[in-house]
Parts: sequence; structure tokens; C-alpha cells
Amino acid sequence: MPEPAIVLGANQYGKAEVRLVRIDRDGSRHSIIDLDVTSQLRGDFTAAHTEGDNTRIVATDTQKNTVFAFARDGVGAPEEFLLRLGRHFTAEFEWVTGGRWEAEQHTWNRIPVDGAGHDHSFVRGGTETRTAVVTFAGSEATVISGLRDLAVLKSAGSEFHGFVRDRYTTLAETDDRILATSVTARWRYGGLDLDFDRIFAEVRRLLLEAFAQTHSLALQQTLFEMGSRVLEGREEVEEIRFSMPNLHHFAVDLTPFGLDNPNEVFYAADRPYGLIEAAVVRDGARRDHPAWSGIAGFC
Amino acid sequence: MPEPAIVLGANQYGKAEVRLVRIDRDGSRHSIIDLDVTSQLRGDFTAAHTEGDNTRIVATDTQKNTVFAFARDGVGAPEEFLLRLGRHFTAEFEWVTGGRWEAEQHTWNRIPVDGAGHDHSFVRGGTETRTAVVTFAGSEATVISGLRDLAVLKSAGSEFHGFVRDRYTTLAETDDRILATSVTARWRYGGLDLDFDRIFAEVRRLLLEAFAQTHSLALQQTLFEMGSRVLEGREEVEEIRFSMPNLHHFAVDLTPFGLDNPNEVFYAADRPYGLIEAAVVRDGARRDHPAWSGIAGFC
Amino acid sequence: MPEPAIVLGANQYGKAEVRLVRIDRDGSRHSIIDLDVTSQLRGDFTAAHTEGDNTRIVATDTQKNTVFAFARDGVGAPEEFLLRLGRHFTAEFEWVTGGRWEAEQHTWNRIPVDGAGHDHSFVRGGTETRTAVVTFAGSEATVISGLRDLAVLKSAGSEFHGFVRDRYTTLAETDDRILATSVTARWRYGGLDLDFDRIFAEVRRLLLEAFAQTHSLALQQTLFEMGSRVLEGREEVEEIRFSMPNLHHFAVDLTPFGLDNPNEVFYAADRPYGLIEAAVVRDGARRDHPAWSGIAGFC
Amino acid sequence: MPEPAIVLGANQYGKAEVRLVRIDRDGSRHSIIDLDVTSQLRGDFTAAHTEGDNTRIVATDTQKNTVFAFARDGVGAPEEFLLRLGRHFTAEFEWVTGGRWEAEQHTWNRIPVDGAGHDHSFVRGGTETRTAVVTFAGSEATVISGLRDLAVLKSAGSEFHGFVRDRYTTLAETDDRILATSVTARWRYGGLDLDFDRIFAEVRRLLLEAFAQTHSLALQQTLFEMGSRVLEGREEVEEIRFSMPNLHHFAVDLTPFGLDNPNEVFYAADRPYGLIEAAVVRDGARRDHPAWSGIAGFC
Repeated sequence: MPEPAIVLGANQYGKAEVRLVRIDRDGSRHSIIDLDVTSQLRGDFTAAHTEGDNTRIVATDTQKNTVFAFARDGVGAPEEFLLRLGRHFTAEFEWVTGGRWEAEQHTWNRIPVDGAGHDHSFVRGGTETRTAVVTFAGSEATVISGLRDLAVLKSAGSEFHGFVRDRYTTLAETDDRILATSVTARWRYGGLDLDFDRIFAEVRRLLLEAFAQTHSLALQQTLFEMGSRVLEGREEVEEIRFSMPNLHHFAVDLTPFGLDNPNEVFYAADRPYGLIEAAVVRDGARRDHPAWSGIAGFC
Repeated sequence: MPEPAIVLGANQYGKAEVRLVRIDRDGSRHSIIDLDVTSQLRGDFTAAHTEGDNTRIVATDTQKNTVFAFARDGVGAPEEFLLRLGRHFTAEFEWVTGGRWEAEQHTWNRIPVDGAGHDHSFVRGGTETRTAVVTFAGSEATVISGLRDLAVLKSAGSEFHGFVRDRYTTLAETDDRILATSVTARWRYGGLDLDFDRIFAEVRRLLLEAFAQTHSLALQQTLFEMGSRVLEGREEVEEIRFSMPNLHHFAVDLTPFGLDNPNEVFYAADRPYGLIEAAVVRDGARRDHPAWSGIAGFC
Repeated sequence: MPEPAIVLGANQYGKAEVRLVRIDRDGSRHSIIDLDVTSQLRGDFTAAHTEGDNTRIVATDTQKNTVFAFARDGVGAPEEFLLRLGRHFTAEFEWVTGGRWEAEQHTWNRIPVDGAGHDHSFVRGGTETRTAVVTFAGSEATVISGLRDLAVLKSAGSEFHGFVRDRYTTLAETDDRILATSVTARWRYGGLDLDFDRIFAEVRRLLLEAFAQTHSLALQQTLFEMGSRVLEGREEVEEIRFSMPNLHHFAVDLTPFGLDNPNEVFYAADRPYGLIEAAVVRDGARRDHPAWSGIAGFC
Repeated sequence: MPEPAIVLGANQYGKAEVRLVRIDRDGSRHSIIDLDVTSQLRGDFTAAHTEGDNTRIVATDTQKNTVFAFARDGVGAPEEFLLRLGRHFTAEFEWVTGGRWEAEQHTWNRIPVDGAGHDHSFVRGGTETRTAVVTFAGSEATVISGLRDLAVLKSAGSEFHGFVRDRYTTLAETDDRILATSVTARWRYGGLDLDFDRIFAEVRRLLLEAFAQTHSLALQQTLFEMGSRVLEGREEVEEIRFSMPNLHHFAVDLTPFGLDNPNEVFYAADRPYGLIEAAVVRDGARRDHPAWSGIAGFC
């Protein structure tokens, strides 16, 4: 009996991390959009894999050129720009039946001079990065927006007790600990015709407020509250997924030095760290949307 | 009509990047195993999310302790160590219905002294990292082994032509280019009772040989050949997935300086880069195994 | 004739990157100081090197403990905290004749909730890091403050022309380019009894304003203007040194696609990058102060 | 009385991290040299700083072009390539009175196929990077070679005791610990007409052997022995400087789990870490050579 044949499975290809900076000029008043754009095509590229036949290969260099050329007409919200790219590639080449377009946006703020923001001088802002992923399956598009590396910390209002104690448990219970995390969140929209910039700002605000206001008995509880606030506040969002490390801050034992430590002196550990990941969804919404495929760190 | 309720979706939690170093002592001849271990539990943790009720929470600190305690009995292949951890947690706590255990292994070679490897002195080896992911769904375990950051380059035997030319295409065709990539590969085994260390070494050898020996008309072709060799050579492997950047090396135009450049002087670009991702599978094998969920960069 | 002997040269040792987080509690209103502290002792440690005799070694673990213990009494400006550490070690151990204490400070802002900053919840701020280096030579201390990774960009008001043209020159002249850099600046104070937090905020403001307001014919010119503003504005500063990469943003040639590009679409390159380094000093001030030794990237 | 004037201090500028890959073809047998090259000019560039007058500016783009053009004639040892660059710039432009040229070299090994190294396929080797810095002061050149990130570990033959005990000391003495470090070493040659590749390989071997063979009572002792071996073995080397972190591996306390730990299970900590820095020099050799200026982490 012959061996089963070896065949090509799922595949995609494209150009990653195209560093696009777009200056919009409204007279002497400039604005800036700074994106890392990744374009990946899906479809029937079997011949390239099995025979090195590139007849159907839209070169990754061409995908890069297309990103720059499309930026000539303006960029707008990253989600909108990715939707334009996706429509182009799926419409232009019949064997391109879908794809994945991704952007990371870096923030620039105006430099304050004499009490006002400068016309054309900017300083990089924030530590977090805004993210957007648009997938096309045929002509159907799905948008997942998000942010990563939003570092937050609260020095009160966090407890952790009542957990399982087994042979390997040594952790003490506490009713006063530092809670710190670096939020990665991604949320899937139900539609496409949205004011993505405004909703992003709103979601970011809701996430920060929920983190600040939740009296936390577990990082899981804080996560769920953050997700719930977003779903309550923005009906456009179908589900939101989080990957949140628990960045441990350990109170230092100062008693060997004859000192107490009323939760004031902490050692911030690098590794290991707790890692809490969960989705918060509307009841009845789809929970296994294929647009999540390939996004790291989301269950 | 009331709003649909907001509920918890898929979730997992645990301790990430436990930096475990295990010294095995066979008399004065030592050996070293160096792992980053991540443990994540899945099951019913709803109350922790919705009420901050930690009754079912096995603390991430406890998971870390368990990693260290289990290492007392030896570690062995990372896959075997992760299987031991998974069996423990799913057997010990009835509401833990599964989980994900991951390891990255760093290589140490003996320092050569007087023509022989030293007994207890080591130098970090290689640039790539060996990876292992074990998932449990109930008592059923799946092993995905791999490696990442295996940087390879060939200075001959690579062409790229015959691709689509559209309005945005400027790339010249070439029959002689540098082909360079940094291989991330992960392969799923059909079974569990395997000599993981030996198979890993074999797969690594097959990948390198295939890269070297394939006359490449496209990085996709090289990828498919690498995957085919592994599936042909190791029947234990059901499928293998690759994420391979095309690390561009551009021949520098020296004509402005009155010089030719017979493919000898190259500029190695950082970004953007091509990105080629594909699975190579046995015909009939499962293509959508849930063990792949959450692994970055695999379609 | 015998070989000249081999001897110990300059040396220092200590603990690096102690991750200290200090919470100050004024009732329910908290504030946070987040530092990476490095402590290095200088003196006569010859016996440890040549004989493994640790009689004079203040263990690096002890140096770490001292950092945490001293934080019990409050931290204040990083420069003040480092001065306290330096005085302690040089006073306590007669063979410790000096040393180097360094800190990097991470910024946290209050999370805005209902229009006001939250009492005990913070979000990481800014992309740049504040730095401080204190050196002791005997009982004499020198303070060098600074910042790194302050990314700024201007989309107008930058030209570059009139440079040397030789056989290897291909760069076109331009009277309109993006100027972008990531400022690392360090400045040496003439004294010690200073309001370091207030001066830091002032220097940062002066640097940003000078970058924004200077019509730039060369990044060197911008650098010199930034330094001059600081020396003019803060008499406490004796000299200031800069390491400023020229982060190239190349206007993309869109003509192959039938498009013009009126300086709106740019490609941000990673490497190579220009690198401009210079000191700006008061005439007559010391130019070779040994406190600069070992600081990377400053000539 | 007028304020003292503000003037330009020391300065240099150039192009950093030119990613040069040179393929040498000896028939079908290729070899590869992979360098990051940085070129920085010193001299009188005052007008560029104070007036934006670029008359004397050799553009950083031109410096980059020169790197690529010079590679057309072959590269050889990185030190030799940097010397060629330095001679060119200091000879060509009278106001260029010196400079600093730096390279980092990445290692590639032949992929083994059928028991032999492949003709034109390579795999990235080693974890460490070879470094070279050439400075010109006028026509006088100085070469400092080195390596960084050479990670080594020994699991026996390391003790640490007899250190100072003060109020802040809690560390226990030990006669059996893991000793691990990541060596950065740089050595200054007395001459220029040297077989740099061969000496580099020899120095690397001597460093590894000394680390392995030294029974260590302190990392300082290991460092000094490593330096002594190099100076004893290679008369071309005048002095060698080290920056060596003490990468702590803590034996995990398993007694809470009813287990002993005979130095077999360790936790590898990230931060803080010890940091040991020292020079080892020939008696009578110059100890304050200006070529060391601006190299990070060397006292």
C-alpha cells in the first residue's frame, strides 16, 4: 500500500512591516500617520509551492508598492486603509480568495510651544501601540481592532485570597497588593461602516476606567470587568479578548535590616509572570470566528 | 427587549516563562537542561472572572512551584516534562479540564579543552530555540514540537521570476539572488510515546539539508520541500507548519562609483520583509487541530 | 629579560538594574517612583581579582539590599537617591574610594477618571526614560542627568544641501525633508544642591521647544541649538552631550505608478541611520570630566 | 559681566549600522562575511553646528556608499576593512583629522550535507558577536577587537564566601554554586600589521579555556585569569577589558514540598544581576588610551 501523499495545507504570504509614514498637510498645519503595515494574500498558490511556478504570485514587493501607492490618496483610520487594500487584492486577482491585512499604529503628539501644539513638530506619544487586523474570506471582511502594551498599575484596591492550597502552594494570601499588567486587547466588530478612530479612543478610555475603578479580588475579575464595560459601552463590539500578564511587584522583606515595610518598597520582577487570557462576549455571538486565527496569545 | 447578556468566553491562565535550569550529575560529568516553561490551565474558572471567587484558582505561583518540584525527578525531553505537568494538573483538579504547557529550550555545548568537552563548563550554542507545546483536552494530549530563529542563507541556487506584473510591479526578475530566512517551524505528532530528542535532531537535520539542496524558484518552493522531507523522513509527524520571512539581501548598485557588482556586495534590509507561511500535511490528516490555537504567525 | 608582569587595571563591580518601585502614600492619594538602580563600587579590590580573597568585597547582593533598605526612607529625585547611596558606601568602607550609581526612571501618569487623576491607578507614560548617573571620586560627587529615547519628528522646516560631493556621493540636495531623531541627552551639573526634578522638566521642555522652533539646515545645527538653549536657560548645567540618530524618512518614488508625491508618503528606514554626536559646553568649562567615562555613545 | 560663551565641544558624526554582506566566490565554493559597519568622522565641523554650513560635511549617505564601494575589492578581517576606511577618510579630506570605525561581525557556518560543508548554504552560528573598533587620531590608528554576548556557565568549581558582612548583608556563603556570565571583552592591540582573524580565534579559545579551568572563588578572579591567559598567550595584546554580568542561578528551596535539592534545580534570574568590570594590563602599558572613549560599560 502506498504512503499517503504529502500535500499543501493552509498558506498565506505577503510583505510584513511596511513602515509607512503619511504626512497630511492642511496648509501649514500638518498631521502625521505612522503605521507598520503587513499584507498577506490567501488563495490558490499551490503551483508556487509544488513546482516553483510563480504565475499566480503577486510579488511581496508589489504588495509593498501598493501600500505606498494607496497612501497617496490618504490613509485615514488604519482599519479603513486595510479594508481598501483587501478589497483591491481580492478584486484584482481572481485566485486571491482572501487575505489578512494588519497595521500597528504609533502615536505622535504635537510638541507644545508657547502653550499651543506646534504646526509640524511632533513627539512620540504613549507606550502602547494601536493594532488592527482585517481579514477577507472571499468578499466578506472582518475587522479586529486592538491595542498592546498598555501598562497600568494600581497601588491599592487589589486583593488575592481564597485560592486552592495543595502540596505545592506556598503563596500567602493578601488583602493589599500592587496590581500591574500590560494590557493586550483585541475586539471584533460586527460591522465595517464605523468611525474606527472615535471608537478606539472610547474603548481605550473604558479599559482604563474599568481598571482604575474595579476593586480587584483577582486579575481575572478585573479583566472581565474591563471587557464588560467595553461591550456595554460600544454596541459595535461583538467580543473582546485579553492577554494580560500579572506583572508581580513583591513587597521587599526589610526586617533583616530592622525595618518594617508598610507596602511601600517593592521589587518588580521580570519573569516568571502570571498570564491571564480570556474572551468576553455577547451571549449568542459567534465565539470561534476564523479571523482570530494566527493572533498570538489568544486562546 | 433586554440587551443580550455579557458572558465569559474561552479562557486560560497560568504562569509564563518559568526559567528552569536543571543540572544532571553523573559523577563529575554534568549535563544541563535550560528551559522557559509556561503552564496554563483551562476549565471552569467562571466564578473568578465574574465574582472574584478564587475557590477554583490554582494560583499561578503554585503552578510555578510545581514546575520546580517536578524537575527534582529529572526533566528529560521538554515534551515529556510538559506531558507530566499536564497529566498532573488535569488529574488533580476535577474542574481543570485541559490546558496548555509550553517550553523553549536553550542549547548549551561543552567547552572544548585539550580536545575534549569539559565536564561541567558550557557555552551557549546555536542561535535557534527549540520549542514544545503540549495541550490537553480532557485526558487527550497533543504534542507540537518546533524550533524558531534558525537563520539560514544560500548565496547561489535561488531564482525568482515569472511572477504577476501589474500596475504596481517594479521588481526585476532574477536568476541569481541570495535566499535568506529565519525558520520558525512547528510540527504535530500523531502519538505521544516518542523519542522526542532524537526526532528533533533528525527534523532539524532534514530541514537544513532540504534548504541547502533545493534549487529554489520561490521561497514557497523551498518551504514545501523542507516540509516534504520531514514528512517523508519521520512518519511520526502528521503535519508541519512554517513561518519564514524572506530576509532580503539587495545587490548594491555600484555603477555610480564606476564599479560593477557581480553579486558580491549586498545590503541586508531589516524591514519590510517577505513573509511566507504554509502548512505541509499528509493527505487525509486533520488540518484544523485545535492544538494550533494561539500560536502566533501560523495560518 | 623577563616578561613585564600582568596587573589589574581600572575596575568596578556591583549590582545592576535593581527594579525598585516605591509607593508614597499621602492618605489615600498615592504616588509612585519606578527606578532601575545600578550600584558599582570602586576602590582597592585587587585581592579578589588576583587571589579570590573576598575580604574587601561588599557583595553585590548586599548592595541590592541597601538600595531597598534606603528606599524605606523615601526616594525623591533619582539623583538625590543615588547621592545617598554613594555617600553611604564611600563612608562605610574605607577601601571604597569611589563608585558609580545609576538610575533609569519610568514615568507613570494618573489614569483620568471623571475628569480627574485617580488616587492610586496609573498608566505608564511617555516613551522616553529619564536617566541619572552619580559618580564619587573620594568624597567628591558629580551628577550627570539625562534622558534617552525621546523620539521627535518635524515634517517641515528641515533642509540639507551644500555638502561635499566626491566620487561616492549620490545623495540629492533637498530643501524640504522630514527630520526625525530619538534624542539621548546627558548634562553635567556644576553643583549638587539642586531641585533635580524641576530642572529635569525644564530641560526637557527646552529641548523639545528648540527642536520644534529651529529651522534646520543640518541635524548638527538642531543639536547645537538644543544644547545652547539648555545652557542659556539653566545656569546649573555646565555641559550637555547628545547622541542623536538621524532616522531617515525617504519620500517614496510613486512615478512608476503614475502618481506624484508632494512629500506626503514616506518610507521610514531602520538601518543604516545617521548618527550625530556632540557636546555643547560653556566656554572655559571642563571638557574631559571623568564622570563621562563608560557612558556609551558619547565622544 | 557677560555670560561665558557657549561653544561646541567634542563631536563626531557618520552612518551607523550599515548592513554589509559580502559573498566571496572561489569558483562554486562561496564564503560569506556579514558585518554591521559604523563610520564616524572627527575634525572641524563647527560651521555645520553653529551656522548649518555643510561645506565640510561628508554626508552620512556618502560614508555608507563608501563602505559598499570599498567592499567591492573584498573585505577580509573586519579590522583591516575598518583601517582601509579610516585611511581613506582621513587622507581624502584635510579637515577630517580622525574618526572612529566600528564593525560587528555575525558568524555563518556551512550547512553539513552528506558529511561535508555545503558550497553555498550557510546557517548562522554562535550566539556571540565579534566586534572591532578602529580609531584614527590624525594618521595614527588604534585597533580594539572584541566579542560580546559569549554566554558561558559552569555547574561546579565555583565558590563565594569570606565577603564583608554588614547590616545589610543577608547572602549565605557557598562553596558550590553555578557561575554563569555573558562575556563582553575588548582588547587593544599594540600594532596594526596583524593576522586579526587568527588572533581572534586564539583569544576566544583562551577565554573559554580559562573560564572552564579556573576554580573560581569570585567572578573577579575568573575575569582576571581570563585576561591573564590572553596577555600571556598573545603578545600583540596590550590590555583587555571585560564587562561580565553575574547571571544568578538560585537553587530552588524545595523543602516546602518535602524534597531536597542537591544543587540540581535552579531558577535563572533576569534582574538584578551582578556586574563585574575590569581591565587586565601589561605592567607599564598605557591605561588611559583615548580609543576606549565612548565604549559602553568599560570603566
